[in-house]
Amino acid sequence: MDISDLQAQHPEHWRKACAIRALAMDAVAAANSGHSGMPMGMADIATVLFEKHMKFDAAAPGWPDRDRFIVSNGHGSMLLYAALYLTGSPEITLDEIRNFRQLGAKTAGHPENIFADGIEVTTGPLGQGISNAVGMAIAEESLRARYGKKIVDHHTYVFAGDGCLMEGVSHEAIGLAGRNRLGKLIVFFDHNGITIDGDVALADVTDQAKRFAAADWHVQEIDGHDPDAIDAAIAEAKKATRPSVIVAKTHIALGSSAQDTAKGHGALTDDQLIADTKKLYGWEHGPFEVPADLKAAWEAIGERGQAAHLAWKERFEALSDNRKAQLTREWDRGVPKKLASALRKFKKEMSQEQPKLATRAASQKALEVINPILPETIGGSADLTGSNNTNTPDLGLFGPDNRKGRYIHYGIREHGMAAAMNGMALHGGVKPYGGTFFCFTDYARPAMRLSALSHAPVTYVMTHDSIGLGEDGPTHQPVEHLAMLRATPNMLVMRPADIVETAEAWEIALSQTDRPSVLVLTRQGVPTVRTEHKTKNLVSQGAYVLAEAEGKRQAILLATGSEVSVALAARDKLQADGIGTRVVSMPSWELFSEQDDSYRRRVLPGGPVRVAVEAGVKLGWERWLLGERGREAKAGFVGMSSFGASAPAGDLFQHFGITPEATAEAVKALL
Amino acid sequence: MDISDLQAQHPEHWRKACAIRALAMDAVAAANSGHSGMPMGMADIATVLFEKHMKFDAAAPGWPDRDRFIVSNGHGSMLLYAALYLTGSPEITLDEIRNFRQLGAKTAGHPENIFADGIEVTTGPLGQGISNAVGMAIAEESLRARYGKKIVDHHTYVFAGDGCLMEGVSHEAIGLAGRNRLGKLIVFFDHNGITIDGDVALADVTDQAKRFAAADWHVQEIDGHDPDAIDAAIAEAKKATRPSVIVAKTHIALGSSAQDTAKGHGALTDDQLIADTKKLYGWEHGPFEVPADLKAAWEAIGERGQAAHLAWKERFEALSDNRKAQLTREWDRGVPKKLASALRKFKKEMSQEQPKLATRAASQKALEVINPILPETIGGSADLTGSNNTNTPDLGLFGPDNRKGRYIHYGIREHGMAAAMNGMALHGGVKPYGGTFFCFTDYARPAMRLSALSHAPVTYVMTHDSIGLGEDGPTHQPVEHLAMLRATPNMLVMRPADIVETAEAWEIALSQTDRPSVLVLTRQGVPTVRTEHKTKNLVSQGAYVLAEAEGKRQAILLATGSEVSVALAARDKLQADGIGTRVVSMPSWELFSEQDDSYRRRVLPGGPVRVAVEAGVKLGWERWLLGERGREAKAGFVGMSSFGASAPAGDLFQHFGITPEATAEAVKALL
Repeated sequence: MDISDLQAQHPEHWRKACAIRALAMDAVAAANSGHSGMPMGMADIATVLFEKHMKFDAAAPGWPDRDRFIVSNGHGSMLLYAALYLTGSPEITLDEIRNFRQLGAKTAGHPENIFADGIEVTTGPLGQGISNAVGMAIAEESLRARYGKKIVDHHTYVFAGDGCLMEGVSHEAIGLAGRNRLGKLIVFFDHNGITIDGDVALADVTDQAKRFAAADWHVQEIDGHDPDAIDAAIAEAKKATRPSVIVAKTHIALGSSAQDTAKGHGALTDDQLIADTKKLYGWEHGPFEVPADLKAAWEAIGERGQAAHLAWKERFEALSDNRKAQLTREWDRGVPKKLASALRKFKKEMSQEQPKLATRAASQKALEVINPILPETIGGSADLTGSNNTNTPDLGLFGPDNRKGRYIHYGIREHGMAAAMNGMALHGGVKPYGGTFFCFTDYARPAMRLSALSHAPVTYVMTHDSIGLGEDGPTHQPVEHLAMLRATPNMLVMRPADIVETAEAWEIALSQTDRPSVLVLTRQGVPTVRTEHKTKNLVSQGAYVLAEAEGKRQAILLATGSEVSVALAARDKLQADGIGTRVVSMPSWELFSEQDDSYRRRVLPGGPVRVAVEAGVKLGWERWLLGERGREAKAGFVGMSSFGASAPAGDLFQHFGITPEATAEAVKALL
Repeated sequence: MDISDLQAQHPEHWRKACAIRALAMDAVAAANSGHSGMPMGMADIATVLFEKHMKFDAAAPGWPDRDRFIVSNGHGSMLLYAALYLTGSPEITLDEIRNFRQLGAKTAGHPENIFADGIEVTTGPLGQGISNAVGMAIAEESLRARYGKKIVDHHTYVFAGDGCLMEGVSHEAIGLAGRNRLGKLIVFFDHNGITIDGDVALADVTDQAKRFAAADWHVQEIDGHDPDAIDAAIAEAKKATRPSVIVAKTHIALGSSAQDTAKGHGALTDDQLIADTKKLYGWEHGPFEVPADLKAAWEAIGERGQAAHLAWKERFEALSDNRKAQLTREWDRGVPKKLASALRKFKKEMSQEQPKLATRAASQKALEVINPILPETIGGSADLTGSNNTNTPDLGLFGPDNRKGRYIHYGIREHGMAAAMNGMALHGGVKPYGGTFFCFTDYARPAMRLSALSHAPVTYVMTHDSIGLGEDGPTHQPVEHLAMLRATPNMLVMRPADIVETAEAWEIALSQTDRPSVLVLTRQGVPTVRTEHKTKNLVSQGAYVLAEAEGKRQAILLATGSEVSVALAARDKLQADGIGTRVVSMPSWELFSEQDDSYRRRVLPGGPVRVAVEAGVKLGWERWLLGERGREAKAGFVGMSSFGASAPAGDLFQHFGITPEATAEAVKALL
């Protein structure tokens, strides 16, 4: 459908869509950066979607039962901001639009959910949004199964471009959605044939319609500028019981001289180009100007959902007090009071029982306490269920025939799993956790970074956390991954030493409301080191004195996870030689950093030599070894400086010298 | 085809295939770990492939024109080791098979190319092998175009399982191969319907045949146990002008009580199960025993390619001396002598011209010198050609119609690009480099780790390396990525400060033979800081004194990349206040670590206060700030401690306090 037909046959639609286009052009021109082409190309679909289908109440963009709208091709952020502003978002005001991409604006270069309701997730890194959406649709199915469709019943809509669909994570997400028959997920593929480098065909000849069909999706192909075709396709997609993709042929940078070109993908800032385009559109208004009647028409769209929202509120109020309280707690990301007491009881039992258990197995035991208390947990694994120990008997399998199931077989899709969990966490109402081998943090990495950046309280259960993995060899043995995660802002990393610390770490992870947690767990058995029960959650301090020096304190050993017991054994040797040695268990650098200065000094006083033991690389340990203020201590490190090797775990710890003997020697060398 | 039919109709084939199966069972049982099921399921295909199709000479497994055989489902490593041993590999001996998964053995848990010829790449992390294979096929096409098919003309065969095909990177690789019509790439999909968690259908319902067809592959579906069908399918695949997939229905752990089950995926170690299975196979030999006649039959297969190898050698010898020398240099990963002189000349010009240029643009200028001298470079970008500045006019586009082209539009496929480059580098004869935004190192991360682990000398051109990227915001602004890479063993990271250092970094990268290099480059312009020409490559020292203190040396500023000019400006301020300040440019921690102790002490003497300036997180800097021996200096850091933000770059450097003023203040606070 060309512009003149649109103007003639759908004049009201055309004006509305052009408001999005004009605002996008104006904001990009003012910022002198950004992406004009996607909003110009996708404005017709956005207009029909918001006007006729999206369930939302612009004045209350956080309404839990709203439809979710995700711009996976996040560089087209101005389309989202324009739609929010036009429909009457209380947060995305005209000033914000004018401040597009400026310091402190809510209208960041790519959409960031932490800045305003209505921005559902953080996108920009391609392929993430469509994958988040799969998680959102899973969360919706799960909550609908638990609370009924009077309380939870909404769609998840996604805009995705060629970039999203070329990224590998999209393959994982599409497969996961197809398998789980997520019928309320509807994706619009912005099939404009253009990428930054030029024609898509320079890099890809994939038939996307066939590709989605191969993954058992419902597929339609339409002209992405024809309002009637768009409307009909959405109606049809809503009827489908499988996830839907609407392959929409569009023109990037529609109507401009850059239409259908790579130039049109980017920032159109040329005054004449903009003037010519607006003229072609019949748009005769100044920059950032939307005529009052048109703004009113858009605001009417924003108000369309008010009645539905009110009716929903009434249905919510009609729930029993218990149900209301529970759902409210879940939306607020709280934990029930009885979690703390149940975990305390568990800790007490374990400190008495003192099992020698891998912390991954300890994690499962903790989950057996947790999952019955928290009905909102949704567990899973990237095809390593028996190794990650992520399933518990009460969960049941989530799937097309059992939406109440709370365990997901994510398949061999670490990245898709992480991105889906971000979507679940940001949808709200559920607490996702998922497992893989710690080494495969690499695969999940782009989505894990976004967990941190978008404040998504996801829990990553990362097992087989060192050369202790053994024979599978260096491809499966993390050595640099702790450093990688510790370097990432807003990422909470916990490497517990035994079953007690593991339970404490889980309690902390489940209590997070605005950051992800990574539980770093062993494959191999470790002894219980917390043999004296403490009510207090010691992991919450990040580091603490596990064993005090006897006699004059000459050395402090710092260790995490499986190496805490190595440090304790080294201490025995050193004490036997009359060297007073403190052992500090240090499960979380982040939590320790958050303690006040005096606590940190008490745990790591200046003077004694310090040796850290960790089956990973040294990078970053200098902070604790040499002292935060520097000049504090002579220091050594027992750990890895290369990749691992394929051999039984015991042989590897010997081979790489991560032993009590080596640790004791390192101390002696410094004294 | 069932076992009794195979035994009856193809007795010789059956015996050969059972040698693989029996060795796999024996080795896994002896190691008490590993994966029996894949070798048992894929032995028929391997046998037909080696017996009838693979071009190789077992006695010379490094012959450059051999067919490549890649086990992408690397947990099935025993299939590869068995085939190598049976055909007569000089390296994979029976002792190695007996030592499967033990310390020091070449038979690691997952195949590691650094241990023996015939192990083409390092696999295990799923999806990597099939993606490496795409790169190998690209390298083959490129070299064939350059040297003719008398010298280069071979196939790349891949075994891949459900795991490989679920991983997102497979989507990227398949798309890249389809677009480039890599007709000599032949993939066998081990369609056994089983993953670790159970039936594939628990996680995936994708129709893989349709999926490959959607990416324009040649697709066949066969019974993976029928030797005739296998043979015919390979013959057909070889004729195809597009990449081929042979979807082979197989039985995992064929013939055992664990056949077609998740148990069959793993280590079958039960004596009775093994005895029963061998009995069913009609295999009446002891553990690790292969009857002499059968071993001889396999060795005959290993010798089958000797004549072809000899004939190839003759053709190679018939080349002109120049061509021979060039090809030999390329295979040996050497650089031509004139590279050094050309780059010296370039450096000299630049130190006189002193352009203010982004280092990404500087990189392109260096490439304009390099590419005409090195015909073996193959450049590319993940759809950011104009931003990464990776293309030069002489390269031409690689594609189905131009195999001589040396530039690849990888599409929005950072992970696929990195994995393909690993394949190219390990194929040999070509030097791949490829670009994306530094932040998207995250997407490429699993393959980049394998570059390091498998000693693949790939060059990563990572641009837009900090908040200096500006308005695109924190989703696109790396802060933790330098730490992540520096933590990775065998990874050479270089963040040059200006055009001269950029040229030096390129020279170093191209000279690497056994590790990857990452060039970390700015978006924004930076002044030339190396204004005095030096013949010596100073980046090769990792860190060096760029500006000496005037007067008493009270402070040392350490900086990398774009912050070197910040440090120089801070020095001006400090010197103006009478504070003698040295500036150390530190483009590469790895290279500096490799210098001798006395050089390191000369560059970073104890005493003066130290402040590092880098627009990334601090983690790891303590080593240089507090001193490698500790107690060396009072120290400060000017950098990032959070994610970035969306705003113009200049505003961000001010906002986050990475400025000459802040740096000078940090020094003064320490004095």
